[in-house]
Amino acid sequence: MTNDADSESPEINWPAATPEPPYYAVIFTSVRRDGDAGYSETAQRMLKLASAQPGFLGFETAYQNIGISVSYWSTMNAIRAWKANAEHVLAQQRGKDEWYASYRVRVCLVEREYGA
Amino acid sequence: MTNDADSESPEINWPAATPEPPYYAVIFTSVRRDGDAGYSETAQRMLKLASAQPGFLGFETAYQNIGISVSYWSTMNAIRAWKANAEHVLAQQRGKDEWYASYRVRVCLVEREYGA
Repeated sequence: MTNDADSESPEINWPAATPEPPYYAVIFTSVRRDGDAGYSETAQRMLKLASAQPGFLGFETAYQNIGISVSYWSTMNAIRAWKANAEHVLAQQRGKDEWYASYRVRVCLVEREYGA
Repeated sequence: MTNDADSESPEINWPAATPEPPYYAVIFTSVRRDGDAGYSETAQRMLKLASAQPGFLGFETAYQNIGISVSYWSTMNAIRAWKANAEHVLAQQRGKDEWYASYRVRVCLVEREYGA
């Protein structure tokens, strides 16, 4: 199945092709405020930046009432480095101030994976 | 913010109100085949059943090109019991046979959580 053109996911195939566990996942769940306010452009830019980070393994996102975005990483240090990326820090602050009514970030160790 | 009426999420508030980590998450990522074929009714039924299982902590779902559903659980045994639930086993088989072009299930230990 091909992926529709989508402003938040310009070049990602689904589901993410992650390696054998263990690896890490960051589940980002959000409720958006009304209006775009630069969100879409920044989301694309952040995906491009994250994809270029050491230890980035993949990304999945969907939005329907809430947004759920999951990024996959090889190590906890890779997650910490991405969280501390200067441009990403600015985007996180804009998220708190402008884009999200509420959000949760959950950092997880993926222990098992299966599928078809 | 109130939640829109939605066939897949009849009575869930977002994001899920999970306890202090550690706890478990099951990330279910799927690409659907065309057509409903009983999917929506079964999805509602499974959410109702899962919500009544011991150790169920919460649920989040969104669909946009792909489906991402995350269920939260207190223990790995709670996840195993839900996976082995007889009605859920039948639904899993219908998923493989009828509803999903591809899917991944990732079982994760949630180590950190934060948000606003």
